[in-house]
Amino acid sequence: MADTIALRPVPLTRARFAPYGDVIDASHDAVQPMNEARFERFDDLCDVDLGDGGVAISVTRARTATVLPLRVDCVERHPLGSQAFVPLSPCTMVVVVAPPGEAVEAGDLRAFVTNGRQGINYHRGTWHMPLIAFEAGQEYLIVDRAGCEHNCDEHELDTVVMLEAP
Amino acid sequence: MADTIALRPVPLTRARFAPYGDVIDASHDAVQPMNEARFERFDDLCDVDLGDGGVAISVTRARTATVLPLRVDCVERHPLGSQAFVPLSPCTMVVVVAPPGEAVEAGDLRAFVTNGRQGINYHRGTWHMPLIAFEAGQEYLIVDRAGCEHNCDEHELDTVVMLEAP
Repeated sequence: MADTIALRPVPLTRARFAPYGDVIDASHDAVQPMNEARFERFDDLCDVDLGDGGVAISVTRARTATVLPLRVDCVERHPLGSQAFVPLSPCTMVVVVAPPGEAVEAGDLRAFVTNGRQGINYHRGTWHMPLIAFEAGQEYLIVDRAGCEHNCDEHELDTVVMLEAP
Repeated sequence: MADTIALRPVPLTRARFAPYGDVIDASHDAVQPMNEARFERFDDLCDVDLGDGGVAISVTRARTATVLPLRVDCVERHPLGSQAFVPLSPCTMVVVVAPPGEAVEAGDLRAFVTNGRQGINYHRGTWHMPLIAFEAGQEYLIVDRAGCEHNCDEHELDTVVMLEAP
């Protein structure tokens, strides 16, 4: 039997996530006043990279809750654009990623856990585990590339990867 | 003294909001399964219209709470692109809008109240009251046009417009 890799998520920070994407939250230093200073605006938090495609704003809602530990069988990437997920009510997200590139090895995978307020934007081509949620009914906003072109490559992992609880 | 216009918000629906923009929520009919049916995905809910500009994803946080009734002094429009606001935790939003066009009259204004889960996308050029929040600390995601070009026209209303509680 192949070796098993155990992935334990570490807290998500901008620096740790930089090889894979962006963190979307209101903790950035570059805050701007808005509407006569009634708001603080944290501007342009991501590299939204959609090539020649349009922008789609979508909502997804979890039908089932995932329990950790979970075996990660497969990762995917979107070769034509970035993809952002932002929770529509505060919730912890766990993401598993590997850097953009043609190939992905189980040993390249890293796991992160959000602080409950953070969203994430995967850079174009970043390998990632499909979205999971820990509560049924949880909703997320998605900002990604509109269009009908093939924009999802999947890779079955040939090593047993177990995603542990944070 | 000029006449006073009292605007009382009515519940936001897709049909009522169609002249002004889009409703962003998970109540759409066109639901797609996602990630082996662990999610329901409500795809491409808005007309994101940014011309030749890039996409900015930003977060804004309310520093102060607004109390109704409120006098609406001014409306604004973004001539170069659409602008979406989605609450990052469930909250009621009240928006005041008038159709896109060069001129805007106080009599054209309409007010809507969301159901707590809805976000909105203003079409390019839709006149709207600047964002208000009813709780300090409330956060919203913004998806609009990146870039430094002038993209905000303001219009001072010469009629007294009072936005009432829903």
